[in-house]
Amino acid sequence: MMETTVKKLKVSAIENGTVLDHIPANQLFKVINILNLTDCKNQVTFGTNLESKLLGKKAIIKIADRYFADEEINKIALVAPLTKINVIKNFEVVEKRVLSVPSEIIGFAKCSNPKCITNHQPVQTRFATVEDDGHLKLHCHFCEKMTDAEKVIILAKN
Amino acid sequence: MMETTVKKLKVSAIENGTVLDHIPANQLFKVINILNLTDCKNQVTFGTNLESKLLGKKAIIKIADRYFADEEINKIALVAPLTKINVIKNFEVVEKRVLSVPSEIIGFAKCSNPKCITNHQPVQTRFATVEDDGHLKLHCHFCEKMTDAEKVIILAKN
Repeated sequence: MMETTVKKLKVSAIENGTVLDHIPANQLFKVINILNLTDCKNQVTFGTNLESKLLGKKAIIKIADRYFADEEINKIALVAPLTKINVIKNFEVVEKRVLSVPSEIIGFAKCSNPKCITNHQPVQTRFATVEDDGHLKLHCHFCEKMTDAEKVIILAKN
Repeated sequence: MMETTVKKLKVSAIENGTVLDHIPANQLFKVINILNLTDCKNQVTFGTNLESKLLGKKAIIKIADRYFADEEINKIALVAPLTKINVIKNFEVVEKRVLSVPSEIIGFAKCSNPKCITNHQPVQTRFATVEDDGHLKLHCHFCEKMTDAEKVIILAKN
């Protein structure tokens, strides 16, 4: 039974770890950067532009033997709020994580105002999250500029 | 026979396209950026920190229905010269591509000299590739600084 399923998967099942599914394909590399997966030493598999009835094109990430704290995983809510996060043990889903949007976003999102001090001085970015007309936005603590969450640029780690 | 193989793969086989295997795990995201895969609309699957007898930890990329020109693929030789590139048709390897190091590297590698004009003005970077003591290096056309190819920073596309 399980073998039949595995054969059809583009990215194979993991024994233990975390699976992030239903990421909009155009947000995959933002999620990768938010979770610092470019530096991760665990086995990580990704697939993107996979067929999805829900999203059109989706991406998936499977990280072996790694589990995330709420603070880490909630950052994803900014760019991919509908991501389904499953915790896997012995090839079984043992927990479905629920994302909640953090009230403050500190240090990893870029302010879209080119004149903002955070784009010119070594000042950590800081935003409050606000919902505006059904869209999540970031309100800059320094310049008050509103940035659309789904278009936000993720700052590369130093 | 094929099914047995597929079941064991972390990233499943593709019917048609290009497979890049034996990428050193720490160079995966450089290869992704060099090939602009973050913007690619094709189905792409990746695995990293996979076991490799040859490299310790390797990464693999499979891009469905896409084939690369020599100029594109040769850029990889800078950061991952031992990458094995297979062209796949109907699940079979129909061609093994051989990488050759380009003599000039224009526009996608960053000069490691903080004072280089290319780090301050909108001037496209330009290097000659040179081999020095068995290591590939980039010789900056503007400031003459030598940058180790395997440590080079890949400039994000605008």
